[in-house]
Amino acid sequence: MTERIPQQERSRITREGLLRAAVDVLAEQGWAAATVATVAARAGVSRGAAQHHFPTRGALVTATLEQIFADLTAVTSETTATEPAGDRIAAVVDRAVAIYTGKEFKAALQVWAAAASDPALRELILPLEAKFARAAHRMTVQALGPSDDDQRIHRIAQLTLDLARGLGLADTLSDDSKRRAQVVATYIELVRSALGE
Amino acid sequence: MTERIPQQERSRITREGLLRAAVDVLAEQGWAAATVATVAARAGVSRGAAQHHFPTRGALVTATLEQIFADLTAVTSETTATEPAGDRIAAVVDRAVAIYTGKEFKAALQVWAAAASDPALRELILPLEAKFARAAHRMTVQALGPSDDDQRIHRIAQLTLDLARGLGLADTLSDDSKRRAQVVATYIELVRSALGE
Repeated sequence: MTERIPQQERSRITREGLLRAAVDVLAEQGWAAATVATVAARAGVSRGAAQHHFPTRGALVTATLEQIFADLTAVTSETTATEPAGDRIAAVVDRAVAIYTGKEFKAALQVWAAAASDPALRELILPLEAKFARAAHRMTVQALGPSDDDQRIHRIAQLTLDLARGLGLADTLSDDSKRRAQVVATYIELVRSALGE
Repeated sequence: MTERIPQQERSRITREGLLRAAVDVLAEQGWAAATVATVAARAGVSRGAAQHHFPTRGALVTATLEQIFADLTAVTSETTATEPAGDRIAAVVDRAVAIYTGKEFKAALQVWAAAASDPALRELILPLEAKFARAAHRMTVQALGPSDDDQRIHRIAQLTLDLARGLGLADTLSDDSKRRAQVVATYIELVRSALGE
């Protein structure tokens, strides 16, 4: 029995290492490179051990998306709890933009692009997508305002996430951060004025 | 001499057919499928004839992006000239969203995703990207307002195109048109109020 826990712990560490490596491979080398074998090599794990965790590419990719979405959701919750009330709108917008301009988004984009022409992959990832979209929207609504039932807040939350997604895509091929800062500032101004702040 | 013009005309028709087929293959079958051979088959053109026009995949893909951008820019100019002044903001936003939710955007997205991990492809398409971004921005600014030198109009034009890009991405895996209509309506309201209309 004394050896079971370390074994489980080792297994967990291996799994997490594979998921981190999958994000790196997707973001840096693209969809075609993101096979179980390549990800195993990147993680420094044997192919057999990797296949024990993820028997197929589909299993690896869906687990990677789940991990990405869980990480992004966790970061978002933390930030919400600690931000000053005065800069609430700016903080919400900045956070949404940060979600979509990081390495995780670039990895997820590779999966989306592949799923666009792969119905089986699309079926695997659509439920994850929908769950993440709901979580991101719920947290954005909560962070934006106390009036949770206000339809206006709900729609501005959606708008914010859609804009952030577009800014993320614009950052895929080259560093768009300077232009983005101006666009984000303009948007924050529009939302402040719409919410009367 | 009498036969030279039909020959040139045939050549032009073949080229255009290949570019249309490339858009279809990219949008429906994805990046991996979009080889010169597959596109030639889709266009009903021999592989040799296709390679005469596009010796490499890079040449085919860059010509396809050029064609997509030229078509989108042409549509945009036409629409601008005919729209009623009263619904100007709504028309501008709707048109930007239409650009990014069509088949052409889905094809371009496949190229962007591939270019994210392919430096040589990225070098080929970045200048096209930049040229299209400038053209789309210039036309959006002109359509939005008469005050061409107003920094606010410039930034709202960028914001509009960034939002449209995000909405396009959200439409990649499933039909997002219902949700999108609400988000677009909210955005139009924000812009109208920001521009005092």
